[in-house]
Amino acid sequence: MINLDHHTITEAVLARQAGMADPRLREILDSLVKHLHAFAREVHLTEAEWFQGIEFLTRCGHITDDKRQEFILLSDVLGLSMLTVAQNHDKPAGCTEATVFGPFHVEGAPHYELGADIANGAQGIACLVRGTVRGIDGEPVANAMLDVWQSDEAGLYDVQKPGLEQAQARGILHTDAQGRFHFRSILAVPYAIPHDGPVGDLLTATGRHPWRPAHLHFMIQAPGYETLITHVFRRDDPYLEADAVFGVRQSLIADWLPQEDGTYLVEYDFVLHPQGGTAKAE
Amino acid sequence: MINLDHHTITEAVLARQAGMADPRLREILDSLVKHLHAFAREVHLTEAEWFQGIEFLTRCGHITDDKRQEFILLSDVLGLSMLTVAQNHDKPAGCTEATVFGPFHVEGAPHYELGADIANGAQGIACLVRGTVRGIDGEPVANAMLDVWQSDEAGLYDVQKPGLEQAQARGILHTDAQGRFHFRSILAVPYAIPHDGPVGDLLTATGRHPWRPAHLHFMIQAPGYETLITHVFRRDDPYLEADAVFGVRQSLIADWLPQEDGTYLVEYDFVLHPQGGTAKAE
Repeated sequence: MINLDHHTITEAVLARQAGMADPRLREILDSLVKHLHAFAREVHLTEAEWFQGIEFLTRCGHITDDKRQEFILLSDVLGLSMLTVAQNHDKPAGCTEATVFGPFHVEGAPHYELGADIANGAQGIACLVRGTVRGIDGEPVANAMLDVWQSDEAGLYDVQKPGLEQAQARGILHTDAQGRFHFRSILAVPYAIPHDGPVGDLLTATGRHPWRPAHLHFMIQAPGYETLITHVFRRDDPYLEADAVFGVRQSLIADWLPQEDGTYLVEYDFVLHPQGGTAKAE
Repeated sequence: MINLDHHTITEAVLARQAGMADPRLREILDSLVKHLHAFAREVHLTEAEWFQGIEFLTRCGHITDDKRQEFILLSDVLGLSMLTVAQNHDKPAGCTEATVFGPFHVEGAPHYELGADIANGAQGIACLVRGTVRGIDGEPVANAMLDVWQSDEAGLYDVQKPGLEQAQARGILHTDAQGRFHFRSILAVPYAIPHDGPVGDLLTATGRHPWRPAHLHFMIQAPGYETLITHVFRRDDPYLEADAVFGVRQSLIADWLPQEDGTYLVEYDFVLHPQGGTAKAE
């Protein structure tokens, strides 16, 4: 393994890692090395460009902390996140579709009773959210855990606000015996993903905008069902066709209905896929 | 651009970045997106595996600082660094070959007069290093700047030693009017690349060792010539055929000769490629 050139090095790296004990890891890393090398050869990557890539990843690493995840953001804008979600969720028609997780979920959100206002001080127009969680055969899913999060009217999640101690517009609730949920929060608005870092520079350099259509995030878990990570999007949002992270599904678009008292109401019914259920053929 | 699946998303991302002003950036990012997506589809990457990747890159970012560069180390062990070097250095026979830059170069190393001992306190068996810098036509290159760096007998570079303030086994020298250089340092020994971080975990998981054969790093710059970044490797090192970063070239192997007084001598003559010189056809 000496005198390797830009063609022979690929086989050399594959040979070196042929001793891997884990066959799945080998499958993944072999493919990764082949595609990484093919990319560098295809564009005839220069050393200066290679170093720009190193610096870009370094910046992503240094801006990432327990409240900001620039690598998820990068994966999101490159379409890798939605690709990964899509190819792992070929569920039967009728099940609620999944979409990207995004960088703003936080473990350990506060628990709320049904009917509570999860805004907890977040600024925005009041909004009631309600619906049901059912299985594919229509059975209500009682005590399903809903982890919900969204931005405020300025387009910011609580974790983006320096010095804010408490969770805002984020909470965990459970469905009742009939699979129903309802809670108060604020009106979802379109917002720009964080673009003051390297991913923002990438968007600028590639002539892309950072906007996402208005949405509510849901992660829904219940015994016997696959975990559902998705959004509900707001109909007529100007960015539905231009989501910066490619996450919109027609089936996830709902109406935020203005009420007489100036608040809004959105209703959405989720359908979970049973664990071990038959996936749709690709 | 809604309802994208794991096939249609690739074209959607390419279309979104089609407005890029810089054609070279577009070439690079289009190829990157295609290969990144093809990789994820080829291995049917799961969401859990995707998240392991996010966590791996995050760890690389957090361990990287002004003295440690885990992304370069990652590129090195995946063979990307050597591939990039190789495809950018198709120089005429007779020119000194390049190899990987590595993660341990430091800007602003101390300047030394010819004959000085650059070890500056680094532990190791004393060694005299000497040679010439010439152009491809044999002309001596006077006043060429040599930036030299190496590990100590424990296999550690100065920047790997917590609390060490001064540069050790690292320095900048200039050739004399005849293109000659000579300096004192310490005997190069094989060493393990840093493997207490995510790249080390990757090596372990893939059944790979972290060893590099003994070498001296050189970066040589002179007006009118291409900058040469290379190593001189020590003959008979047990890791010459198994360099963890795939950097060994036969033409870069030299003899470290034991002297009667217990010190060593290594001689190596460098040949620079003129700027704008004719590259060898691929």
